Amino acid sequence: MGGDHGPHVTVPAALSVLKDKHDLKLILIGDQGNLEQELRNHRYDNSSRLIIQHASEQVAMDESPSSALRNKKDSSIRVAVNLVKQGTASACVSAGNTGALMAISRFVLKTLPGVERPAIVSTIPSIKGHTHMLDLGANVDSSAEQLFQFAIMGSVLTSAVDNIQRPTVGLLNIGEEEMKGNERVKEAARMLEESDINYAGFVEGDDVYKGTVDVVVCDGFVGNVALKTSEGVARMISHFMKEEFTRNPLTKMAAAISSPVLNALKGRIDPRKYNGASFIGLQGIVIKSHGSADVLSFATAIREAIQEVEKDVPQLIGSQLEALFMARDNA
Amino acid sequence: MGGDHGPHVTVPAALSVLKDKHDLKLILIGDQGNLEQELRNHRYDNSSRLIIQHASEQVAMDESPSSALRNKKDSSIRVAVNLVKQGTASACVSAGNTGALMAISRFVLKTLPGVERPAIVSTIPSIKGHTHMLDLGANVDSSAEQLFQFAIMGSVLTSAVDNIQRPTVGLLNIGEEEMKGNERVKEAARMLEESDINYAGFVEGDDVYKGTVDVVVCDGFVGNVALKTSEGVARMISHFMKEEFTRNPLTKMAAAISSPVLNALKGRIDPRKYNGASFIGLQGIVIKSHGSADVLSFATAIREAIQEVEKDVPQLIGSQLEALFMARDNA
Repeated sequence: MGGDHGPHVTVPAALSVLKDKHDLKLILIGDQGNLEQELRNHRYDNSSRLIIQHASEQVAMDESPSSALRNKKDSSIRVAVNLVKQGTASACVSAGNTGALMAISRFVLKTLPGVERPAIVSTIPSIKGHTHMLDLGANVDSSAEQLFQFAIMGSVLTSAVDNIQRPTVGLLNIGEEEMKGNERVKEAARMLEESDINYAGFVEGDDVYKGTVDVVVCDGFVGNVALKTSEGVARMISHFMKEEFTRNPLTKMAAAISSPVLNALKGRIDPRKYNGASFIGLQGIVIKSHGSADVLSFATAIREAIQEVEKDVPQLIGSQLEALFMARDNA
Repeated sequence: MGGDHGPHVTVPAALSVLKDKHDLKLILIGDQGNLEQELRNHRYDNSSRLIIQHASEQVAMDESPSSALRNKKDSSIRVAVNLVKQGTASACVSAGNTGALMAISRFVLKTLPGVERPAIVSTIPSIKGHTHMLDLGANVDSSAEQLFQFAIMGSVLTSAVDNIQRPTVGLLNIGEEEMKGNERVKEAARMLEESDINYAGFVEGDDVYKGTVDVVVCDGFVGNVALKTSEGVARMISHFMKEEFTRNPLTKMAAAISSPVLNALKGRIDPRKYNGASFIGLQGIVIKSHGSADVLSFATAIREAIQEVEKDVPQLIGSQLEALFMARDNA
């Protein structure tokens, strides 16, 4: 129940999803008093589908993951992930400190057998619809084996949530002729070519938004930079657009006349519709919402969690990996 | 004189820059017949400021750099770079095969003393004006020393062409708390903190377009992905905008009324205004134009070359590096 806005956002988001999903049960974790107050503000009547679980501590947004892991045993993040571990909750959704959420999730839930490290995967808008991209920042200097595992995990997730039989998977690379990528990417490509994955070859940065493949696989440093750079470009364009449309009375009139079009455009690339990154490769479902998420945005992250629970994504990934490791042992 | 459009673009671009710059001399290198024909098409009168140098071969856009280096001794790229080496030309501008241009430039011109490898640097639009970013694809898995050298080279170039005394330099990193980047980036940061460079610390992907610093330094794999991803986002937004503005008669009317605003917006992020990437760290000036450049765009690349010649950027970088290595030897 963290993030920049706390329960003011997470509570109404939870209530809005509860309204749609009639078999959903939610546990709100955080300061009991605050949560109860927020529920009263929304005139919420008690229901057996909403439970409050008190947590006496909070992980600060700038706290180091190791400190959070060591010292905040009763933080809302820790309590939430513990509930997933115990099976009381089917998934954890948090807008809190990313590093702390990852460290606690890894420590408490553990990775699936054979998974070296979990990855962060998110949905990104594209001209054709959307693309799944991973890793977005959990791992730097990923090895070829890790990239290969990201490809499998991304493929299984995409197949489950998008109902695609065999999603196409591309490895992010650069197009400069001289070197054509680094050794790890080349080695991962060789591994993917020999696998069951529907591997579509190398893709470049612009392919993410063209929608060339269903899943784009890359190292976490590269993926994180690509994602943040994209946000930067979109914000710059929106900034220039605002400046140009508010320049003088004539341009303001043009803006007024164009407002339905501009709103439609805004809706198509609205980052709130894509909120909710999965920590994939864990023995449990953990969804990270943007810290600055608003109600609509946080609700999207909760819905992502529901989808992954319904499809039992960790189990699907686990069995896919098990089959792979067995095949390797027999080879 | 290569690129996707050949002399149809490069010749009129050359003529347009010759018109503005009265002390400029240009050598057009390529197939003499084609170039003469193109000049006649533009009704060009002979002038001592424009010379044609015949080159009997061409490097194909998809040819491997090693093959171009070995087998195309009379290609336009090779002839052009040779002229720079001999001092006949002060700079080479090409829209041809990037890898081949880099391989030939390194082989013929050599890097400046102490420079491990040249980098590719380009100007990128930002909310505040523009940012210089390097490396954009010449080096993968750059070491801390290389990143440090990129910072020096980028700082010197920016200082010279933008007339800034001490440009601010940021190291591209990721913000996830858990690891805060890889070891090479951390080591490069330590080196920059101890240097004369106006080092501003780590920046993230969105800072490139915010204009947080004058120079953004990163590994070439990361920079290339960031650049291509940016192009992808911009193209997706422009695609959606077109779709929304052409949806029905009403939106088409809105588009017509907004066209001055939309054109102004387009002008502000027009990639043609930012064409011309420098191969920096060489003993000579080599500018790479986008292969798909049009006349305006290729002219921008020629102007970038002129600016670097006027400031003698390679010499400035060379003396900055020499001072640095001397300081290291004395330490």
